[in-house]
Amino acid sequence: MDCSPAFVETLAGLLPPGTLRAPEPRDLEEPRGRWTGQAGAVALPRSTDEVAAIVRACAAARVGIVPLGGGTGLVGGQVMPEGPLPLVVSLERMVACRGVWPEENVLVVEAGMVLAEVQAQSERVGRLFPLSLASEGSARIGGCLSTNAGGTGVLRYGNARDLCLGIEAVLPDGSVLHGLKRLRKDNTGYDLRHLLIGAEGTLGILTAASLKMVAPPSGVAVAMLVVESPAVALDLLALAQGRFAGLVSAFELIAGQGLRFLTETMPEVRQPFAVAPDWSVLVELGLPAGLDPEGAMASLLDEAMEAGLVSDGVVAASGAQAQALWQVRESIPLANRKIGAVSSHDVSLPLSEVAGFIAEADRELAAFGDLRVNCFGHLGDGNLHYNAFPAVGRGREEYDGKAVQRLVHDLVHARGGSVSAEHGVGRLKVGDLTRYGDPARLAAMRAIKTALDPLGIMNPGAVLG
Amino acid sequence: MDCSPAFVETLAGLLPPGTLRAPEPRDLEEPRGRWTGQAGAVALPRSTDEVAAIVRACAAARVGIVPLGGGTGLVGGQVMPEGPLPLVVSLERMVACRGVWPEENVLVVEAGMVLAEVQAQSERVGRLFPLSLASEGSARIGGCLSTNAGGTGVLRYGNARDLCLGIEAVLPDGSVLHGLKRLRKDNTGYDLRHLLIGAEGTLGILTAASLKMVAPPSGVAVAMLVVESPAVALDLLALAQGRFAGLVSAFELIAGQGLRFLTETMPEVRQPFAVAPDWSVLVELGLPAGLDPEGAMASLLDEAMEAGLVSDGVVAASGAQAQALWQVRESIPLANRKIGAVSSHDVSLPLSEVAGFIAEADRELAAFGDLRVNCFGHLGDGNLHYNAFPAVGRGREEYDGKAVQRLVHDLVHARGGSVSAEHGVGRLKVGDLTRYGDPARLAAMRAIKTALDPLGIMNPGAVLG
Repeated sequence: MDCSPAFVETLAGLLPPGTLRAPEPRDLEEPRGRWTGQAGAVALPRSTDEVAAIVRACAAARVGIVPLGGGTGLVGGQVMPEGPLPLVVSLERMVACRGVWPEENVLVVEAGMVLAEVQAQSERVGRLFPLSLASEGSARIGGCLSTNAGGTGVLRYGNARDLCLGIEAVLPDGSVLHGLKRLRKDNTGYDLRHLLIGAEGTLGILTAASLKMVAPPSGVAVAMLVVESPAVALDLLALAQGRFAGLVSAFELIAGQGLRFLTETMPEVRQPFAVAPDWSVLVELGLPAGLDPEGAMASLLDEAMEAGLVSDGVVAASGAQAQALWQVRESIPLANRKIGAVSSHDVSLPLSEVAGFIAEADRELAAFGDLRVNCFGHLGDGNLHYNAFPAVGRGREEYDGKAVQRLVHDLVHARGGSVSAEHGVGRLKVGDLTRYGDPARLAAMRAIKTALDPLGIMNPGAVLG
Repeated sequence: MDCSPAFVETLAGLLPPGTLRAPEPRDLEEPRGRWTGQAGAVALPRSTDEVAAIVRACAAARVGIVPLGGGTGLVGGQVMPEGPLPLVVSLERMVACRGVWPEENVLVVEAGMVLAEVQAQSERVGRLFPLSLASEGSARIGGCLSTNAGGTGVLRYGNARDLCLGIEAVLPDGSVLHGLKRLRKDNTGYDLRHLLIGAEGTLGILTAASLKMVAPPSGVAVAMLVVESPAVALDLLALAQGRFAGLVSAFELIAGQGLRFLTETMPEVRQPFAVAPDWSVLVELGLPAGLDPEGAMASLLDEAMEAGLVSDGVVAASGAQAQALWQVRESIPLANRKIGAVSSHDVSLPLSEVAGFIAEADRELAAFGDLRVNCFGHLGDGNLHYNAFPAVGRGREEYDGKAVQRLVHDLVHARGGSVSAEHGVGRLKVGDLTRYGDPARLAAMRAIKTALDPLGIMNPGAVLG
């Protein structure tokens, strides 16, 4: 049913004044502008109890709910462009820190806290919250968990789900799941935490989470190293992990095309190499006391050069230099946006399939003419953003972006990869899920959705369509 | 319905000869002898297809299934002592390695492979599979995953679930979930892997798993250090993690009572201290190239002594000495069994509640007379085996074990802990789950069980009762 003026009036009677308002453009947008959402109203609850009251009322009236965090998701999970008017439930007022236990390496925060603030809260007590991604200044932790966000720290610290010890959530019937445990081990029944994490708001609304912090490394070393190919980059990764087991914090692949896009669109970003190498990697090590970071990185570089894996490299000699190298990596998505992609992909592959996939995709894409490919990403996780751009002087509309995407996704699937590595399914990849998903898995997902949300009110249309 | 002779005959017609046999005592036992199981027959499938055929036949006839791995579980998940006769499905013939990818740090094995063999397969390619527990010589990986096993490596490497990238499983309707992905990132829908892991065979039968290996540390240092109290032990842990972020591989608490039990029952085990200290910890560091392990541990010991956290300690100077220290830790459960517990507990607590819990439980248990408490375990994970034993010269039957357990569990629950940290619920803790479980969580668990196993044939009576 629509979130009608009559329903909004009923709902208003159940909530403190000022909890509801009319939708504003920012509530209905998503970053790439693919869709514009719609809503009968926006609810801004201040507490879990208010969220529960809202969900109960929506369940009674069969009104759909779109949960909203920072709105930074790239697959349309946060906007519902069609169907009966939903209620948007924004978590932006639920930003409290419920507690910090540095001696446990745990903090408990509400779902609306911005990721950068979670990081800052951890830093304040001498700890690190290692989830790190481009949109951390506006993404909210509830959304990061609902989409199981990835980013640059996954290689060492895992995905968002791996950093969560427990959740509090409002389930589709309005009941509250109290699961804010601060435990490293708890084997009492089914793991509903992991079920709701990554469910993109289709099984309930996360209201708070118990998060893992870690002790920060004593020293950090950063380098950008030139390699001949993605295959050689992976040999370098194996070498680094052999020497520094568990201490490689980041291993990011950078293509020459990405550096040339940077030169073209953001010349103010200082690049480490006079001529953009075809392939390079940004490596970060986080090291214990007793090891000189720069020396450790230099010893890795020596060994890698001796083994013929690296032909050139820049080791940061200061924090500022390290930051400058990271700025190159982090500016690449911005440069991409300025160029304007024909088709962007967030894929992952078994590590031993990465090099073969890139070669094959490059070959196959030649059929589409003069596309420029910028293939970069979290190589250590097998996660590539293999993105295709128009030739200089041509427009993206001159290419068949959907066919490019289909081709890339088919190749990924054939090699046992995933067509959504870190962004989720949302509304963008519902068709991919059906096309590539295991039938038994899809059937079980549908059975679970029906069991927990029989009325289908939680983020209708997302994930399962 | 019973797994009757008629049903067994029907089933035999669907399977290769020799797949079914009559139950033997070893199929119906569990290590502590609390229960004896029953079964109409035992099936020994050789392939996932055979498992699927068995499950389909059981679903059609509504015959219950008890999946059996190594049978080492301590909560009775592997034996069904009452109700209609089930079919036991043993995975002991499904022991193949489906593939090893050292460059990916991945191996894919069938569910019946014994944990020690998984470790050996990894070692053969220069990698480490870091799940490690007392029963690793007979526990099978399918059971380890179904119970989300813990052990001594959790502090650094996580629980069993954290070491699994994907699963293959037969669902209660006989369909096969094909999910043996070798990916670090895959955000395409609900995480059924984590739902089946820890479900103790009540939502399906795991038939194979894709497992994470890691590069082994370049050097390992082991020490046993004397501390004044569990609270001081935790300060020592924080110090160690500050110096060696992410590299503390084990942090095990040992009580004087445990060492005295060892002296009493296993005098052949060489102990490091002439007089058993009230509290000590076994610390293991796994270190990168460039750091001398013994020197690194000595520097930690120096700093800890200077800070007043450690009064005495033994640093292993060789692999043999390290092994001898581990032997002390690993012999404690054996000594416990020889003494015979009044009540054993597998609990976890938020780290900052550990010391308070131990003090409170010691006080409260005084009401039961002259019990001897041996409190030991994986302190770094907040996981204690807080076990109570009869006084010298008295029998365990002279105490009210159930009342002791209730008291301990109540205290744990009141401090936000878990009454099953690493062993699971099985049949032993069904009542605890109801008593301490969050109502919304229990309702969601039941809804999921009904959705995936509407006939209730998968491990009837386990977990949800």
